[in-house]
Amino acid sequence: MLQQLIQQVYEANMALPAHGLVTYTWGNVSGIDRQQGLVVIKPSGVPYQQMQASDMVVLDLMGNVLQGRFRPSSDTATHLELYRRYPQLGGIVHTHSTHATAWAQAGRAIPALGTTHADYFAADIPCTRGLTAAEVAGEYERETGRVIIETLAAEDPLHTPGIVVYQHGPFSWGRSPDEAVHNAVVLEEVAKMAWISCSINPALRQIDAHLLEKHFSRKHGPNAYYGQKDTAS
Amino acid sequence: MLQQLIQQVYEANMALPAHGLVTYTWGNVSGIDRQQGLVVIKPSGVPYQQMQASDMVVLDLMGNVLQGRFRPSSDTATHLELYRRYPQLGGIVHTHSTHATAWAQAGRAIPALGTTHADYFAADIPCTRGLTAAEVAGEYERETGRVIIETLAAEDPLHTPGIVVYQHGPFSWGRSPDEAVHNAVVLEEVAKMAWISCSINPALRQIDAHLLEKHFSRKHGPNAYYGQKDTAS
Amino acid sequence: MLQQLIQQVYEANMALPAHGLVTYTWGNVSGIDRQQGLVVIKPSGVPYQQMQASDMVVLDLMGNVLQGRFRPSSDTATHLELYRRYPQLGGIVHTHSTHATAWAQAGRAIPALGTTHADYFAADIPCTRGLTAAEVAGEYERETGRVIIETLAAEDPLHTPGIVVYQHGPFSWGRSPDEAVHNAVVLEEVAKMAWISCSINPALRQIDAHLLEKHFSRKHGPNAYYGQKDTAS
Amino acid sequence: MLQQLIQQVYEANMALPAHGLVTYTWGNVSGIDRQQGLVVIKPSGVPYQQMQASDMVVLDLMGNVLQGRFRPSSDTATHLELYRRYPQLGGIVHTHSTHATAWAQAGRAIPALGTTHADYFAADIPCTRGLTAAEVAGEYERETGRVIIETLAAEDPLHTPGIVVYQHGPFSWGRSPDEAVHNAVVLEEVAKMAWISCSINPALRQIDAHLLEKHFSRKHGPNAYYGQKDTAS
Repeated sequence: MLQQLIQQVYEANMALPAHGLVTYTWGNVSGIDRQQGLVVIKPSGVPYQQMQASDMVVLDLMGNVLQGRFRPSSDTATHLELYRRYPQLGGIVHTHSTHATAWAQAGRAIPALGTTHADYFAADIPCTRGLTAAEVAGEYERETGRVIIETLAAEDPLHTPGIVVYQHGPFSWGRSPDEAVHNAVVLEEVAKMAWISCSINPALRQIDAHLLEKHFSRKHGPNAYYGQKDTAS
Repeated sequence: MLQQLIQQVYEANMALPAHGLVTYTWGNVSGIDRQQGLVVIKPSGVPYQQMQASDMVVLDLMGNVLQGRFRPSSDTATHLELYRRYPQLGGIVHTHSTHATAWAQAGRAIPALGTTHADYFAADIPCTRGLTAAEVAGEYERETGRVIIETLAAEDPLHTPGIVVYQHGPFSWGRSPDEAVHNAVVLEEVAKMAWISCSINPALRQIDAHLLEKHFSRKHGPNAYYGQKDTAS
Repeated sequence: MLQQLIQQVYEANMALPAHGLVTYTWGNVSGIDRQQGLVVIKPSGVPYQQMQASDMVVLDLMGNVLQGRFRPSSDTATHLELYRRYPQLGGIVHTHSTHATAWAQAGRAIPALGTTHADYFAADIPCTRGLTAAEVAGEYERETGRVIIETLAAEDPLHTPGIVVYQHGPFSWGRSPDEAVHNAVVLEEVAKMAWISCSINPALRQIDAHLLEKHFSRKHGPNAYYGQKDTAS
Repeated sequence: MLQQLIQQVYEANMALPAHGLVTYTWGNVSGIDRQQGLVVIKPSGVPYQQMQASDMVVLDLMGNVLQGRFRPSSDTATHLELYRRYPQLGGIVHTHSTHATAWAQAGRAIPALGTTHADYFAADIPCTRGLTAAEVAGEYERETGRVIIETLAAEDPLHTPGIVVYQHGPFSWGRSPDEAVHNAVVLEEVAKMAWISCSINPALRQIDAHLLEKHFSRKHGPNAYYGQKDTAS
């Protein structure tokens, strides 16, 4: 069971360069076994080309390393904060993918402009506030998790399965490591489309509310009819 | 004959990721056998890497599934609406290709700015109006087909072999599934060029009418002289 | 000798998709044997994946087809006009490469903004005027050649080895088919860079004259010192 | 030892096209053996596809060629000027990578906008002043090195491991040829992100100072905790 999760997390990490989401080691995926309370995450700074499944690090939800010869990703405390807060999450991804990061640097939420966005996100993809000097000086990575939670507020994270952290970059999540990667790919693509749309038409407003609602519920609501009956998306 | 169409539709679907037009499963191609009144279309939500020719779904023009173990594409009703209205169509493509979708999201027709555009499209590539809340709440995918038809109005769809649906994305078509894919590739490329041209020169107007007419008729008119005598384009 | 030129022109044509300069069949390369007065050019509308060296078409400078089972490129008359006017040309390329075409559609010369440009072009890359309705209705492809010549005026075409034709796209040339392709690649890359530079700084003016002159002469002047002694560039 | 440096410099040069940083021969990497005072650099104008480790040129710090059958890179004098001034440098890279060059052409420093930038650069990536006509007419390549040094002023070059030379393009460096290439890749990526961020939000200011400082010191300060204990980055 743990071995299977390790393999899933490893493969999900390897999917990041395959999808063009990472330069060098700028990204990480984790997954969680809720029954055992075990989190599996990429080691810090290990090149993707050399990475093995056996390099993954296993921790408990308090961040104690239980298995693995490497340090865990430097963003581990952010992942753990989110897992502790949201029991519905099974996987989390962080990247510095080009267009999503550009929105984070611009300090702007990625506006919902079309059905591509609405097929996955029930609203704009929010941008967090900036962390204060005190938050950055303190438990920085944990505060990054906290500001994500503060920004999501009462939102269901599976309805807003990604966010951009101010002046930093995107985080995304899902019910599994795979789904979290899927949402990272979508986030990057809608970030690119939104940039181009706003460049074509700077006066652009958001997608019509009824169209947003239709597409999100077509894939995610109780009456979803996209895909085959036995698949999640 | 049906087997041949199934193979063509399968190959045309596989051409979408090969041309960089789709992320995950965001695209579909269909083809029609006019004599038998049979439409072949991609199944919904099946990954391209796993898709086989035998996964294609066969329907009649009313949408009754005649063959196939999967649900047809969730956009099937749009395809059928167009096939019923335009007897000259042999293939239809829908994608969320990046630049064409950006124009759809911007709510703007893609202006005819050069001969690349004019070699395939006799005018601007129109953007439909938005669907009303009632249309979205009703037979949404069929209404998408209807608004395309409403936008084309008296146009010959083979002279305007593609469109962008407001806040959604591009549809294209042709006399065969292959030609529909070809036009999807062109639509994406002219969408990218038009964005860059407008960024360089925001005051840009359309291509000179005599140049537009010359290029379109050079390839499509009765006196076409591009290509070899026995090829369509 | 002719066989060697045919092979060179074939390989130069195959280099266009390898460099990402063409979509489908939107490009062509020709070469000339000045001693025999023979021009070799790509056939019209033949897909690159199927093209063989034996598909190339051989013509004289008046456009009479001497060898080959296919029609020559529909742009042949443009190539011939340039070969007749400029004895120093050994190869010509036409593409619809994305960024160079975007400048053509924008109706703007590509400004010399940096040393990348200056290493190959002694000045801005000009944009021709638009052709008149009469010119388009007449010998259109030949008029395209004429307007290029009109725009170059007294310029040495080897100092301005490319141009963008208004609302159409780029042509480039060189002492050989290979060099013409090289200049097509450079033209596309400097077109992309110039777009981005102007987007970053809309008030941008041209490169300092002394820097332009230095870089062009470093590679092309009598005292060139770039590269090895026995190579042209 | 020299043989090992030659191999490193060769491999670092070959990494440039692998990372998409060079068109044709527009780039070069050098490395230095400080004990022997030997610099190894790419030959001028030799295509990457044909380049062998044995084509590298070995010089002393005064520019005397000690080994190699080719001329050294035309930018050699710039590399030497930097090696003489900064004993901490072990490798230097020059490219005309698209987005970094676009900033150089725009005459603008690349602003520090996010943590991707701050993980490698302690401040903006500066843009040099333009060289005067006299400097260009004189020892041009050496003056390029001098203006880089003038611009860095009192900065530690390992805290600002790259720069854009006005109307020319980027130079980067590091403690080894590999690290210099790594910084060239980062420079190009942050140049692209910064362009897009400024396009999304033209009023954009710089990253919060405390976040910049945090990220730079997390990777580079005495208390760095990114990566594994035995790795440099």
